[in-house]
Amino acid sequence: MLIWRVNLENGKLQREKIPEAWSRLGGRGLLARIMLDEVPPRCEPLGPLNRLLFSPGLLVGHMLSSCDRISVGGKSPLTGGIKEANAGGTTGLQMACLGIRALVLEDQVAASGHAKTDWRVLHVSAGGARLEPCADLAGLGVAEAADKLLRRYGDKVALALIGPAGEMGLWAAGIQNLDKDRTPSRIAARGGLGAVMGSKGLKAIVFDAAGCGKPPIADPDAFKEAQKIFSRNLVDHPQTGLYRDYGTAAMALTCNALGGLPTRAFSSGRFEGAEAISGEHLREELLARGGASNPTHACMPGCAIRCSNHFGDGEGRSVVTPLEYETIGLMGSNLGIADLDTIARMNAVVNDLGLDTIDLGAALGVACRAGLMAFGDGERALQLLDEIRRGTPLGRVLGHGAAMTGKVLGVLQVPVVKGQAMSAYEPRAIKGTGVTYATSPQGADHTAGNTVRAKCDHLDPSVQAALSRAAQISMAGYDTLGACIFAGFGFAVAPEVVPALLHARYGWDVLPDILQALGKETLAMEREFNKRAGFTPAHDRLPEWMTREQLPPHNSVFDVSEDDLDGVFDW
Amino acid sequence: MLIWRVNLENGKLQREKIPEAWSRLGGRGLLARIMLDEVPPRCEPLGPLNRLLFSPGLLVGHMLSSCDRISVGGKSPLTGGIKEANAGGTTGLQMACLGIRALVLEDQVAASGHAKTDWRVLHVSAGGARLEPCADLAGLGVAEAADKLLRRYGDKVALALIGPAGEMGLWAAGIQNLDKDRTPSRIAARGGLGAVMGSKGLKAIVFDAAGCGKPPIADPDAFKEAQKIFSRNLVDHPQTGLYRDYGTAAMALTCNALGGLPTRAFSSGRFEGAEAISGEHLREELLARGGASNPTHACMPGCAIRCSNHFGDGEGRSVVTPLEYETIGLMGSNLGIADLDTIARMNAVVNDLGLDTIDLGAALGVACRAGLMAFGDGERALQLLDEIRRGTPLGRVLGHGAAMTGKVLGVLQVPVVKGQAMSAYEPRAIKGTGVTYATSPQGADHTAGNTVRAKCDHLDPSVQAALSRAAQISMAGYDTLGACIFAGFGFAVAPEVVPALLHARYGWDVLPDILQALGKETLAMEREFNKRAGFTPAHDRLPEWMTREQLPPHNSVFDVSEDDLDGVFDW
Repeated sequence: MLIWRVNLENGKLQREKIPEAWSRLGGRGLLARIMLDEVPPRCEPLGPLNRLLFSPGLLVGHMLSSCDRISVGGKSPLTGGIKEANAGGTTGLQMACLGIRALVLEDQVAASGHAKTDWRVLHVSAGGARLEPCADLAGLGVAEAADKLLRRYGDKVALALIGPAGEMGLWAAGIQNLDKDRTPSRIAARGGLGAVMGSKGLKAIVFDAAGCGKPPIADPDAFKEAQKIFSRNLVDHPQTGLYRDYGTAAMALTCNALGGLPTRAFSSGRFEGAEAISGEHLREELLARGGASNPTHACMPGCAIRCSNHFGDGEGRSVVTPLEYETIGLMGSNLGIADLDTIARMNAVVNDLGLDTIDLGAALGVACRAGLMAFGDGERALQLLDEIRRGTPLGRVLGHGAAMTGKVLGVLQVPVVKGQAMSAYEPRAIKGTGVTYATSPQGADHTAGNTVRAKCDHLDPSVQAALSRAAQISMAGYDTLGACIFAGFGFAVAPEVVPALLHARYGWDVLPDILQALGKETLAMEREFNKRAGFTPAHDRLPEWMTREQLPPHNSVFDVSEDDLDGVFDW
Repeated sequence: MLIWRVNLENGKLQREKIPEAWSRLGGRGLLARIMLDEVPPRCEPLGPLNRLLFSPGLLVGHMLSSCDRISVGGKSPLTGGIKEANAGGTTGLQMACLGIRALVLEDQVAASGHAKTDWRVLHVSAGGARLEPCADLAGLGVAEAADKLLRRYGDKVALALIGPAGEMGLWAAGIQNLDKDRTPSRIAARGGLGAVMGSKGLKAIVFDAAGCGKPPIADPDAFKEAQKIFSRNLVDHPQTGLYRDYGTAAMALTCNALGGLPTRAFSSGRFEGAEAISGEHLREELLARGGASNPTHACMPGCAIRCSNHFGDGEGRSVVTPLEYETIGLMGSNLGIADLDTIARMNAVVNDLGLDTIDLGAALGVACRAGLMAFGDGERALQLLDEIRRGTPLGRVLGHGAAMTGKVLGVLQVPVVKGQAMSAYEPRAIKGTGVTYATSPQGADHTAGNTVRAKCDHLDPSVQAALSRAAQISMAGYDTLGACIFAGFGFAVAPEVVPALLHARYGWDVLPDILQALGKETLAMEREFNKRAGFTPAHDRLPEWMTREQLPPHNSVFDVSEDDLDGVFDW
């Protein structure tokens, strides 16, 4: 197992054996370890002391269904804390095939701003690594840049790249990765890691695993056996079929029924246009349109769930892939827009800019509250997104996300924690996810521990801390394995599969509760980093207005006790 | 001694006897006590749970030279911590004559934004208090609004009012007060308390002490005796004469000689145009111009120092009063502008908007680094200030101060601590003041403990923490007395005067080191509030770039040790 270190200031590229202390970790867990070991917690996120880290999870490399995710990390300009954002696609797989457990990007050329000629591409293959100038890609959208990169480096490579938003250092900028069909659509979206990549003058990273086989497996038969059980459990799980048919958009009607679908800038939890933006309607439309449209698509090779989709315009042209629930919630109901075509167009623009649709949707909601846009006015939303591409002051404000937009425009009702926007689960109606938003070291993030599928009264404040605790531990574990949030459907049925897979893959002696152990270790490291960065329990709170302003239709407020919030990590 | 409580939500106005626990405090110390007792430390600064507080210091009301200052407080939208900003003028004096030790403004009508008809004036007199609508004042600049208020309520009243910036909720908005000649020019500038006032829908407060005498004195003869000693020491002090002749602008050449005059966005400590913006040149000009110009002016009745001035255009018209060193540093050398007339015009605009010239000057410096303005281009600076008046997105960004401007525009080299801009003492050249910037609960603020006059090597990091500690304690003490920073010239020579005055005024048994005791008590309360609000030692630091980027001409960095910073409050 290798580590690649690339210094963007002096151009030094080093291949190293992975240190012993890091060798049992991968993905989110390894990123937390590296952050604690190498990044000064109080450093300026867009300055030279921050590092940008890539690491595939422990199980990546074997096309185990939904288990080839890439974790990207660093100190977040958005939250000021530790950040891990992960994505599907092919980046993790190719890194694993190259034997790279982590890529560590250090330092930067200039403290702020880059000339066109400063931009570079990092190319990593079995033969070595090199930095190459790419002035021709500067300022290009993600789609065009990816297209040029694939022509230049061959269409078998994996790419991680930023759009204009990352180049501009905008705090809601993510890092786009190719899906298995080479579309740059799998974004490590949250927390502004695209801005960190931009601050290092890096437009793209090319991983070329040509000539490399899959990573070695200590006990192939045992691995195959465990894989079989996992795959069967996954395929048999009722949720898997739901997500295959409707994608993540299946959540729209579920959340609406719970009164937890963010509507009109988080002023209601129920949207009168929910049907029109539902997964059911989406599937119907895509089936009817045919052509470029497809309701079922795998983002990475070997995925049995296939929750992704292709949204076409009905005249043969592709608009965006995938159209996901979070985008539908934040750019649809949250903006009072009940039209999937409009949402898809906005999604495409935001993807091409290389931005997080969640934070951007929330920011546009704040802009609605500030009077810059009327709810439901998709054309105006597209104009506002164009301000970002043009780099105007307003565009920069929006591109920094919802928290910044609220501060600049003087709107207090902003749905953020630690500066990061909430996803499409209203925390006053789905309070366990609210506990996760409040306490996760990542800031508000449903993938850090969503409780929406728990069988409980989601309005009852007394039961939520325990739900969030369990979900946060599991998710930190899955993120360390490189497993998708939905892989949990397969693992949960037969928890012995996780230790079995790790033992078979690495030959390690693994405890039966390894998933929880990895999750707890990861969360503890992340919390330690944040503590050193200056975070306290005062930061583990939902915004004040959500504890006071009632959310229709249940007229509920967020009322999980502060004691419960402070006890989430007492396990 | 009274407390007035005014609830801006339900319009309730209550006169109360001061609680025993508050009765021995005034000014900054009392504000800290009230904040700890009544304001949830994690509350949204512009939301209903924050309070806006006014309190004259303990010695206010007797026209003791330089000792009639008003302290304004609340939780700062700029720093997120406790805030006290004080000002000269007549507000403190009239409050003291009315027997009011504190005015507590609670709650608000709306969470954000006010209709024109929502704006109100609070009128307080011996007869009672009332809220009156003032739709005609909404949106008006400070000068025009003050003029209308004086016509409406009589020209003997004191005023505390906000300009358009406070109405817009901009984080660099202050609260303007009348000087003894009824010009609204004495601003409680720092930390955005004008935005807090705006969030409560209050455009102005009128204090009418008609019919009230001076506050009672327990032992008038002893008071007079102590006052005599104080006044003589003050007048005899060599610094007093310096400030009388040159105003605070006397510091320009001093700081330039130390290599600590902020120049071109804090990229140098020496300005080639320093002579042209010096106090010496200012005095010469004002004497030559005559008419509205006057190099020596008292901001409050009875002041023996008279460090204020009137800047006229040489053709009989007044431009601004006063033109102070901080403005000259931040809007002059910091912007590469070596012309007092340009600086005075900018100062007048910023005063009328009701903004802090320090944070605005620093913000414009950041705008220069971002390429929005060329250094030295005063006309462009005036255009940018006009963006604020028009409330454009860029204007709002600038009006939120330097920290916000840096974040939005992607500039990392921003001279702020806890979100508040540094004053005109470069902390890499005057490191003791740098320690104060880093550690003060107020954020970067020279008035929290300036060490520039200390006889020491200002570049030697090893001696600065002790200097800052002593200065911070004294200043917190003076701010609790209501004494101007320059009153210290008089008190320092004969420290027994402070306890003598307090004993004579109130009949209290007072310890000989009461000034230090008040200062320590105040700082401890402020730090406790900030701790509860989520501040840690991680926040008591200068920005990272100042520890790395060398400052000409000494090529020094800020290198006071973190141990020294963490030990500042270990007394």
